[in-house]
Amino acid sequence: MTRRVRIGLAGLGRMGRIHAASLSARCPSAALACVFDADEGAARRVGEQFGVPTAPSQEDMLADDAIDAVAIATPTGTHAELIIRASRAGKHVFCEKPVSLDRQATLDAIEAVRTAGVTFQVGFHRRFDPDWAAAADRIRAGELGEVYLFRTSLRDMTPPDPAFLAGAGGFFVDVTIHDLDTARWMVGEIVAVTAHGAALSDPGFADIGDIDTAVVVLRFASGALGVIDDSRAAGYGYECSTEVMGRDATVRIDHPQYRNYEWRTPGSASHGLPRDFEERFPEAYVAELESFARCVRDGEPPRVTAHDALAAFDLARAAEESWRRGRTVMVEPQRAGADVIYTVKQESR
Amino acid sequence: MTRRVRIGLAGLGRMGRIHAASLSARCPSAALACVFDADEGAARRVGEQFGVPTAPSQEDMLADDAIDAVAIATPTGTHAELIIRASRAGKHVFCEKPVSLDRQATLDAIEAVRTAGVTFQVGFHRRFDPDWAAAADRIRAGELGEVYLFRTSLRDMTPPDPAFLAGAGGFFVDVTIHDLDTARWMVGEIVAVTAHGAALSDPGFADIGDIDTAVVVLRFASGALGVIDDSRAAGYGYECSTEVMGRDATVRIDHPQYRNYEWRTPGSASHGLPRDFEERFPEAYVAELESFARCVRDGEPPRVTAHDALAAFDLARAAEESWRRGRTVMVEPQRAGADVIYTVKQESR
Amino acid sequence: MTRRVRIGLAGLGRMGRIHAASLSARCPSAALACVFDADEGAARRVGEQFGVPTAPSQEDMLADDAIDAVAIATPTGTHAELIIRASRAGKHVFCEKPVSLDRQATLDAIEAVRTAGVTFQVGFHRRFDPDWAAAADRIRAGELGEVYLFRTSLRDMTPPDPAFLAGAGGFFVDVTIHDLDTARWMVGEIVAVTAHGAALSDPGFADIGDIDTAVVVLRFASGALGVIDDSRAAGYGYECSTEVMGRDATVRIDHPQYRNYEWRTPGSASHGLPRDFEERFPEAYVAELESFARCVRDGEPPRVTAHDALAAFDLARAAEESWRRGRTVMVEPQRAGADVIYTVKQESR
Amino acid sequence: MTRRVRIGLAGLGRMGRIHAASLSARCPSAALACVFDADEGAARRVGEQFGVPTAPSQEDMLADDAIDAVAIATPTGTHAELIIRASRAGKHVFCEKPVSLDRQATLDAIEAVRTAGVTFQVGFHRRFDPDWAAAADRIRAGELGEVYLFRTSLRDMTPPDPAFLAGAGGFFVDVTIHDLDTARWMVGEIVAVTAHGAALSDPGFADIGDIDTAVVVLRFASGALGVIDDSRAAGYGYECSTEVMGRDATVRIDHPQYRNYEWRTPGSASHGLPRDFEERFPEAYVAELESFARCVRDGEPPRVTAHDALAAFDLARAAEESWRRGRTVMVEPQRAGADVIYTVKQESR
Repeated sequence: MTRRVRIGLAGLGRMGRIHAASLSARCPSAALACVFDADEGAARRVGEQFGVPTAPSQEDMLADDAIDAVAIATPTGTHAELIIRASRAGKHVFCEKPVSLDRQATLDAIEAVRTAGVTFQVGFHRRFDPDWAAAADRIRAGELGEVYLFRTSLRDMTPPDPAFLAGAGGFFVDVTIHDLDTARWMVGEIVAVTAHGAALSDPGFADIGDIDTAVVVLRFASGALGVIDDSRAAGYGYECSTEVMGRDATVRIDHPQYRNYEWRTPGSASHGLPRDFEERFPEAYVAELESFARCVRDGEPPRVTAHDALAAFDLARAAEESWRRGRTVMVEPQRAGADVIYTVKQESR
Repeated sequence: MTRRVRIGLAGLGRMGRIHAASLSARCPSAALACVFDADEGAARRVGEQFGVPTAPSQEDMLADDAIDAVAIATPTGTHAELIIRASRAGKHVFCEKPVSLDRQATLDAIEAVRTAGVTFQVGFHRRFDPDWAAAADRIRAGELGEVYLFRTSLRDMTPPDPAFLAGAGGFFVDVTIHDLDTARWMVGEIVAVTAHGAALSDPGFADIGDIDTAVVVLRFASGALGVIDDSRAAGYGYECSTEVMGRDATVRIDHPQYRNYEWRTPGSASHGLPRDFEERFPEAYVAELESFARCVRDGEPPRVTAHDALAAFDLARAAEESWRRGRTVMVEPQRAGADVIYTVKQESR
Repeated sequence: MTRRVRIGLAGLGRMGRIHAASLSARCPSAALACVFDADEGAARRVGEQFGVPTAPSQEDMLADDAIDAVAIATPTGTHAELIIRASRAGKHVFCEKPVSLDRQATLDAIEAVRTAGVTFQVGFHRRFDPDWAAAADRIRAGELGEVYLFRTSLRDMTPPDPAFLAGAGGFFVDVTIHDLDTARWMVGEIVAVTAHGAALSDPGFADIGDIDTAVVVLRFASGALGVIDDSRAAGYGYECSTEVMGRDATVRIDHPQYRNYEWRTPGSASHGLPRDFEERFPEAYVAELESFARCVRDGEPPRVTAHDALAAFDLARAAEESWRRGRTVMVEPQRAGADVIYTVKQESR
Repeated sequence: MTRRVRIGLAGLGRMGRIHAASLSARCPSAALACVFDADEGAARRVGEQFGVPTAPSQEDMLADDAIDAVAIATPTGTHAELIIRASRAGKHVFCEKPVSLDRQATLDAIEAVRTAGVTFQVGFHRRFDPDWAAAADRIRAGELGEVYLFRTSLRDMTPPDPAFLAGAGGFFVDVTIHDLDTARWMVGEIVAVTAHGAALSDPGFADIGDIDTAVVVLRFASGALGVIDDSRAAGYGYECSTEVMGRDATVRIDHPQYRNYEWRTPGSASHGLPRDFEERFPEAYVAELESFARCVRDGEPPRVTAHDALAAFDLARAAEESWRRGRTVMVEPQRAGADVIYTVKQESR
């Protein structure tokens, strides 16, 4: 009953190390079984830190019968293949977003997990944060009434380095994808995406054809409007805030203090702001893995499905197309059993 | 030196009565000289309340040598003509926005005040609120650095009644015009406007071809992005909030409490929210009239010019066109002496 | 009906000038008729600033039939005599607290206003602040239920200069008197006072036998406890906060921001704090004079009576005795018609 | 290096179950080895929930060589003896406060852990909360300057049941002891304690000679003043807040929201308040055990010593005496090596 799901962790960059800490000592239903990274030294250091063995190779990890599931935090380009191999090895899979920058590879990965019948969850951690979860529950319970407006901001304090950006799939797929998932989850399906972008903080963004600031306007199937503003260079800190305005109530998840104390000096009171996603979401990263482990253990469907990942990816690509072509992209969410699949409508306007 | 500018007030609807209270007892440099309203009974009641005479007609008010200036809060359709007549009578003019729903009438009014050489100010009160004014000053002083993102919300608690809406000029000219003025004032000139609208709270909006919710995306000449979300049906109260994110700092003017006390009951703490613009801007409506009176008295140029009013109007019309045609409208701000005049560019995309 | 009560203002120090501004342009029911100060130059400057005549002497002011009332903001030592002379001249009187540092002089002043039948109000401005007033109304309406705990803080940013301190009557009579009035007003009568004091910021306080920091514990007749912490050297700004905890609800009037905007820099968000009572109470100082003028005009009893002033003074003296003798001072509030008079009980413990 | 300290947990009431959850899955340096409770059924349920064995008896737990340390959350009356037996068995000890209601028993327990040379830590969790810890660090670093005033509140939403109260040692030893520890830790040693109490929410408190509300005034050796207000019946929720006002800065740890979202309905915005210590201190209860485990593992002295526990207990008893006798109790903190021991001074006043 209280068995812990044994999880092998592949990829020990920043997110990987956060997951290592969560799996090692914060998820009651999970245990960190072993770690792997292409950089052997890094793997050894993390393994020692958390007191777990290092897998000599991904193959070894996947062949290990003592491992129930793998958590994938490797570079994006390697996700799809690793998902497929892990599924075939009968391992349940938790994977960082996005599944792939290539749509077909994403579909192949989804098909692989479906065929294998394993549990598959993508790292849309915001769904597991207690504030967003409580707000979504209350919206779902009808406490907000009909939704009129959805608004969300996602902002990094400082841009990642160019090497990362090159492989990140562009602003919308790397950043806005989280907001698009939140929009669908909290409000419902989307029928139109209009995106605006700018490269303001550093000419390097324009040089690689990318942006650091975006505003994306959504129209939901219900008629409600949505607006996302995202930035890679907010300067003051990391921000993730959401507001949903409805007929009967409005919920606002605002920027929290980092540490709940106020420091007062002559004429001024100040409080700390979170500087990165790790400080902003101390519970969500733990909760998403704990939820995954429970679903694996109890044979329940995950709270974020493979098709949710696909939908957010397709919407991010629609946003990118909108930005590049300077016009609204109309999309069509279509039910396919329990899932929803988005297609781009031809040239509506 | 401490002479009070004597002001005749025409129009005693909601805004008119706010102005009556301000001029009567809150503006050190102004004095309420007389009031006028087409509804004689209303005029008499307000006159008695504030202890000032009622003008028998607008003509009488304009002919009265003891009156230095007129404040116009009549229905929009009457603004332009009254501005022109007042100017010709040598009266300085304060007028509620918009000057007119007709562009040519707006130009005629501007020309009239120019010819007469009187002081003319339009009621963009937000420029006079101490929070916005402080933020704008710090931006202007360079404390924010280059601006990356401008974001503002303007929301009414409940829609006005249909009779008002019919003459209000549509959502963008009636509501968003304030945000467009704020955007220009705080960040600078605008080169593209993309507007989205929806009628969600009441089918009556769609019936008259209007909307109750809008999202407007701006691109500034500097390259910065801006986003405005406005609503006539926020439900929880009136909101006017602004954020400007820059390279070196970010300023956020958020929703204040209405009354600074918190009421705690089991498991919950609540505070009051402003229900309307009068509760939200207790100082700004006074400050704009006091500023106007000082400019009249001291012969200084007003802080909002006639051309500022025209620019906001033109941008609101561009937003409306964008919404109706479903595409971005490119605009061109052109210097004309000290002023800026906007023109719509043909079919950029 | 809208007649303005014409008020002569005596004393043009800091509070006097605040009152001049309020009477001149912020109180609809009052008009500043003339000003007087022992320093002729100061009087002339303030008179010119507000466009009112300077009274050559207090006698002239009191003899002027065009003056309905006087507002007294002169040094404390002159209050009582001026109250008595003004009352005898048939003028209504508004006076800064305390009435006097001498109890008998206070009683004489109270007797003079009673005999003359004029309206008399003391400057406990907190009772007129919209937040405290709303909280007190809700307590009175029973929304809080039985009160368990009252807590209030009053803190100055920096100590006044020694010259002022010498004539201010000591910490409890000068500072804590406000809190003692608030305690009685919000919760009810008091039966025990225990005071603790310290001179921490400057040895000068100890040199004159005074303190800069105090904690005063109250026991109310209802059995509830109260606690006051006051300081002359809070450093970060001026603070006046109050909490009343009851069976059914708790109300907290906390420290507001000064200006409602937040300024964000890397990792930190800051907002302004009020630096003095003028920034903290933008409405209360106006409201107390407006209320006084209305009471004069309408012949209604003032919201703070002469006996309220006496009670707060007697409680402040009890606090001082408690601090000096190092023990609790038991007091007895006794009804005398509509009034309550406090006496110190002999040596309870 | 990453060895986990194996801890047996005795006592599975509310705090015991919180500790079970922390040790089981949230402390990287600790492992829950087994549980014990006098109620066998309760022990079995908790053991199953966390997947650990149940110790048949305390003796068995203490005799188990696989156990490095015991965490004691049994009823207060059993603490001292269990500490002594555990120490003699060579086990390190973490114990809930207070060590005992009997001073000699407390001394005996302290002597036992000293003799055995084991690590001993008492559950003053507030020292481990990240906000208090950060504030204390900044005070210690001199950022606040000389301290003028310390203020803290500790309030329960609803009183515990009478059965608990009977064995809890009275209000000051059960509740205020936490604040007294915080006062010493953040500001320094204390020289005078004056306590006031009242039984307001329920006559049952008076019936057992206890109180539900207290105000305690402290004088520190530095001359600074301190004030504590505590309640068992705050109604709105659990509160633990602290402010330290200093010459150069003031730090305020205020009441946080419970969940960082705001719910807006017409004219009102509300947020959740923590209802109990578990919701208020999600990190502190974990951090204190993690810190204990690290100290055990690394052979370092604990951050709260046995003598800290004794000092807080002695100060709580002084508060009780002050309340019962209605006068200030002077105390004398005396250095004994690295420790401080408090004695009550005879009849100072």
